[in-house]
Amino acid sequence: MKKFINQYDDMIEEMLEGYVAANADLVERRHERVITRVGAPFQKKVGLVTGGGSGHKPALIGYLGEGMMDTVAVGNIFAAPGAQICYDAIKAADSGEGVLVCIGNYSGDLMNFGAAVDMLKDEGHKIETVVVNDDVASAPVDNMDNRRGVAGEIILWKVVGAMAKQGATLDEMKRVGDQVVFNTRSLGVAHTPCIMPSSGKPSFEIGPDEMEIGVGHHGEPGIERVKMMPADEITSLLMEKILVDLPFKSGDEVSVIVNGLGSTALLEMYIVYRKVAEILKEKGISAHKIWVGEYFTSMEMGGFSITLTQLDDGMKKAIDVPVNAVHFKG
Amino acid sequence: MKKFINQYDDMIEEMLEGYVAANADLVERRHERVITRVGAPFQKKVGLVTGGGSGHKPALIGYLGEGMMDTVAVGNIFAAPGAQICYDAIKAADSGEGVLVCIGNYSGDLMNFGAAVDMLKDEGHKIETVVVNDDVASAPVDNMDNRRGVAGEIILWKVVGAMAKQGATLDEMKRVGDQVVFNTRSLGVAHTPCIMPSSGKPSFEIGPDEMEIGVGHHGEPGIERVKMMPADEITSLLMEKILVDLPFKSGDEVSVIVNGLGSTALLEMYIVYRKVAEILKEKGISAHKIWVGEYFTSMEMGGFSITLTQLDDGMKKAIDVPVNAVHFKG
Repeated sequence: MKKFINQYDDMIEEMLEGYVAANADLVERRHERVITRVGAPFQKKVGLVTGGGSGHKPALIGYLGEGMMDTVAVGNIFAAPGAQICYDAIKAADSGEGVLVCIGNYSGDLMNFGAAVDMLKDEGHKIETVVVNDDVASAPVDNMDNRRGVAGEIILWKVVGAMAKQGATLDEMKRVGDQVVFNTRSLGVAHTPCIMPSSGKPSFEIGPDEMEIGVGHHGEPGIERVKMMPADEITSLLMEKILVDLPFKSGDEVSVIVNGLGSTALLEMYIVYRKVAEILKEKGISAHKIWVGEYFTSMEMGGFSITLTQLDDGMKKAIDVPVNAVHFKG
Repeated sequence: MKKFINQYDDMIEEMLEGYVAANADLVERRHERVITRVGAPFQKKVGLVTGGGSGHKPALIGYLGEGMMDTVAVGNIFAAPGAQICYDAIKAADSGEGVLVCIGNYSGDLMNFGAAVDMLKDEGHKIETVVVNDDVASAPVDNMDNRRGVAGEIILWKVVGAMAKQGATLDEMKRVGDQVVFNTRSLGVAHTPCIMPSSGKPSFEIGPDEMEIGVGHHGEPGIERVKMMPADEITSLLMEKILVDLPFKSGDEVSVIVNGLGSTALLEMYIVYRKVAEILKEKGISAHKIWVGEYFTSMEMGGFSITLTQLDDGMKKAIDVPVNAVHFKG
């Protein structure tokens, strides 16, 4: 297996040691598997917590910083953090103003964060949870509760992160956070699996000229397997499915993420964004904010996803608030 | 070939269209192959120019922005930009305070920038050039003029970018720039080639359990081909060669870049940085600034490089000046 690791069992521990050593101005290690912003919890600010499996760098720990997350519960590769880790992460974020837990729609994360939230509520903490389910490939629109969360989490973190920084209450953040999730739709395509470090095996099998539309970022099955096609064609196909899903309409203002899944070059993602911009223009939709890069990966998976969020004025303002997270600045 | 492109001949054009559309607040297209900061050239500031082949995103165009580069001459994949492009890029950066050209040590870049500089000097422009040759694998230390430039370019850009922002003269920047280059040493390792979009062929051949130490970021041969080894072992080996080369010594303050070459996961790079930090500590060297991520890639090449720069007080101050380039912020 061609990975720069030592022992499989030490991967997460060693990664966290390296991460905290490299970014000691911004983050610290509070518990074995809980990384926090330096100085968390912050007085007069709602705490912001996320968590989930590892293997998605810069997600999740890269989003710790001013204007984004306060604490992260760190799981193993593609595996939810245990309930105790979730408990410690939430507790570390609460200065008394309450905590918003922002996680993807995966059963392990829901179960373990759910158990932690129940315990902490019993202890008197005020906690709300927003669950991200932006992946249009993972279930029909009339069954959104079964959709996975993918790169749309970043928009949620950005908006509620800005709100918390500016003194919003937990109830306001829960309301806006749910709306951000509803307004956000993503779809991806992958042509190359990642290699699972536990087994050395690929996360899914695929032919030398094939790609799969809608693959989940743990290698979950997508909706269609097709031959490789030109960038404009696959971008049009993804955009069509995303646009009708909300639906997005003429006059909308949106944020756009073109997110590389790991090995796909930034050069290719800009070729994709060129077509995204052309389609948005045709549809009368304006892009208020655009991110092109690697924001939520699956180790060395080859592919990309597109995420659109329909923005109202409040969300636009929140998106524009400066942020200084470890791997997300601007 | 599994790449998200349309026609090979349109790749660079389409990438640039997407790039400028996505980052229109920061960059604009001045000529077909010249991208500049919005509003360049800037009065009372020395202009900063780089250029080279494409395929290294976020380098080179991602480093355009306040506190870094003003204009970039864009070549084809792994191919130097033509002399006319270099000419236009330098001219677009000059407000009358002169221009510092900061490029890697590649014959095509030297020749074409050289020709452009000669023409522009004849027209009365004041221009200096700093050539980066940080790759210790590419020639012995007593033959540094034959060494390639790799991720060390970023440190040069950061330091002279900050100096220009703060009103330094061209002569000061040339002097410090040359010193930064001398103080900077890099070494990389790759286990997986990138795929050349022109041919669909890999940039080099390598066995399923091998990696090559010192591969250039266009796939140039390295110094040794070895079996895959644990992350700590390969990191120690690279660090040993880097540290003796300057040599770096106890009491030094350095900047560190752990740079992914394309498909290597950020998780792995943090495992590498953990060992880098341990070795620096053992040697009595302190890390003033650390970057871990993808800064200078070779499309989907698998591997990473380590870059150390010995910093004096002036360089430390320059490194700490805030920067707002498209893909380099902080």
